[in-house]
Amino acid sequence: MMTGSTANAESHHTTPRLFVTSELREGNEVVASAEHAHYLGSVLRRAPGDVVRLFNGLDGEWAARIAYTNRGQRSHGASLVVGQQLRRQQPETGPWLLFALLKRDATDLVVRQAVELGASRLLPVVTERTNAARVNESRLRAKAVEAAEQSERLTVPVIDPLARLETVLTNWPSERRLFVALERSWPGTLSIAPVPGLAGGEMALLVGPEGGFTRSEHEHLRRLPFVTPLSLGPFVLRADTAAAVGQALLLGMGWAEYVPST
Amino acid sequence: MMTGSTANAESHHTTPRLFVTSELREGNEVVASAEHAHYLGSVLRRAPGDVVRLFNGLDGEWAARIAYTNRGQRSHGASLVVGQQLRRQQPETGPWLLFALLKRDATDLVVRQAVELGASRLLPVVTERTNAARVNESRLRAKAVEAAEQSERLTVPVIDPLARLETVLTNWPSERRLFVALERSWPGTLSIAPVPGLAGGEMALLVGPEGGFTRSEHEHLRRLPFVTPLSLGPFVLRADTAAAVGQALLLGMGWAEYVPST
Repeated sequence: MMTGSTANAESHHTTPRLFVTSELREGNEVVASAEHAHYLGSVLRRAPGDVVRLFNGLDGEWAARIAYTNRGQRSHGASLVVGQQLRRQQPETGPWLLFALLKRDATDLVVRQAVELGASRLLPVVTERTNAARVNESRLRAKAVEAAEQSERLTVPVIDPLARLETVLTNWPSERRLFVALERSWPGTLSIAPVPGLAGGEMALLVGPEGGFTRSEHEHLRRLPFVTPLSLGPFVLRADTAAAVGQALLLGMGWAEYVPST
Repeated sequence: MMTGSTANAESHHTTPRLFVTSELREGNEVVASAEHAHYLGSVLRRAPGDVVRLFNGLDGEWAARIAYTNRGQRSHGASLVVGQQLRRQQPETGPWLLFALLKRDATDLVVRQAVELGASRLLPVVTERTNAARVNESRLRAKAVEAAEQSERLTVPVIDPLARLETVLTNWPSERRLFVALERSWPGTLSIAPVPGLAGGEMALLVGPEGGFTRSEHEHLRRLPFVTPLSLGPFVLRADTAAAVGQALLLGMGWAEYVPST
C-alpha cells in the first residue's frame, strides 16, 4: 500500500528540484550542470540566495541556496551551497517495467509515466514484432531524471541497455513475478481478482509492442514459472496505456493475483 | 469486472475498422467520408472487393466490402457495401472522466487513453488553475473516433462542451459517485482498500490541472456528498498519468472504495 508523502515536502512544492550527482551534506558546494544552470538562471530567473532542492538518489532531499550564477553569458554556470536536509533517503522499490521499445515519443511517454508511477528499473526490450532496434540511452536517462525531479521521487530508476526479450527472460531472477500485459490476446479469458499480495520489489510488468506478441512468444511466456498473465480489460490498448494501467494495478493500489474465469 | 472480447472479433484484428454515421444493415451502401476514402485508398492501398469493418455506435460491428474507390484524384471517394454482422451492439457503460483542460498534446493523450479505457463520457472542465480556456471540440471528437476505431470499441464516448467545474458540480447527478484524484494533496493521508463495488455506470473520475486544485476547490469538493477522494500514491503525477491510473483503478479491475488511514 502506498501512502502520501510528508507535509514537509508539500510545503516546498514550488521550489525548483534538481537531481545532482554530488554528495549532499550540509555546507557542501555543488556545481550545477550547464543544463541546470541555464534552467535556474535563464528559464526560472533565480538569483544568488534563492532556494532550490537537491537529491542524488542516495542522501535524501536537501535545501540549497544559489551561491553564484552567470546567466546570459555564452556558457551557463551556477553553484549551490547545501543547507539542511528536507527528507531522509528511503528506498523506492517499485516494480520493474519491461517494455518493447516503441517509437521515440511513445518511449518517452512510457519512461516518464513509469518514473511517476514509481518503477525502480526500466528494461527496454526487443521482441519479434518490435520495429525499433536502437535506443538513445542518454536521452532516456535525461527523460527519467526530469520525471524524477518533477514527481518528487528520491531516486531515478535504473535504465538497462536494450536487450532481446529472450535474453532477459533467460537471465530472469525467478523470485520476481513477471506480470505480462496481454489484454485480450491470451488464449482464454482471464478476469482479475483484487487480492493484494506481492510487494513492488517482488514484481515486474512486461508490455509488448503495438503489434502484440507472436504466437511463439506467447507459448514461451506461458511456460515460464515466474510469469503471470494479466488481462487489462476488453479493449485494445496502445502500449503506453497498457504500461500505465498495468503498473497502476501492480502498485499495491489494486491487486496482485489473477483468477482464470473458467 | 471486465472480460475479454469475442474470438470472432480477434480474428478480424488486422481488418481496417471505421466509425461511420450511416445505418448498418446487410446490403446497405455506405459512402465513406473523404478522410476514410483517403485512408483506405491511399494509405492502406485497399481496392474494390477488400473487406473492412464498420461500426456506428448503435448497430454493432459489420463486415463490409469496398465497392468503389477513386484513389489519386483531387478528392477521395469510396463506397462500401455492408455484409454480415460481426458483433452485436452492447452497452459500454464505463466511468465518466472529468478533466481540467490541458495543453493540446496532453489533452489529446488524455482523450485517447480514456477512450481505450472505456470512458463513456468525457467532460473537459475549467478549474481555478486551468490555463486553457478554449477547446477545439471537433478535434477532440476526431481523436475520440480514431481511438474507438483502434481500440475495438463499439461506441464513441460523448464529449461535453467545455464547462466550469463549479457548473458541472452544481448539476451533478447525485447517484453517480465522483472520485477525485488528489494524489498527495488532500489533507490527511488516504490509503486505498481494494473493495470492488460500484459498476462503471455509477462512477466518474475528476482529474485536476497540472497545478492542482486550489484550497477553496478542495474545501468545496470535500463538502459534496457524492465525492470520494482518491489517493494515487506517494508521487506527484502529471495530469495524464493521474487520469490513466485513476481510470484503471475505477474500471472494476481494482477497487471502488477508500478507507481513511487514521
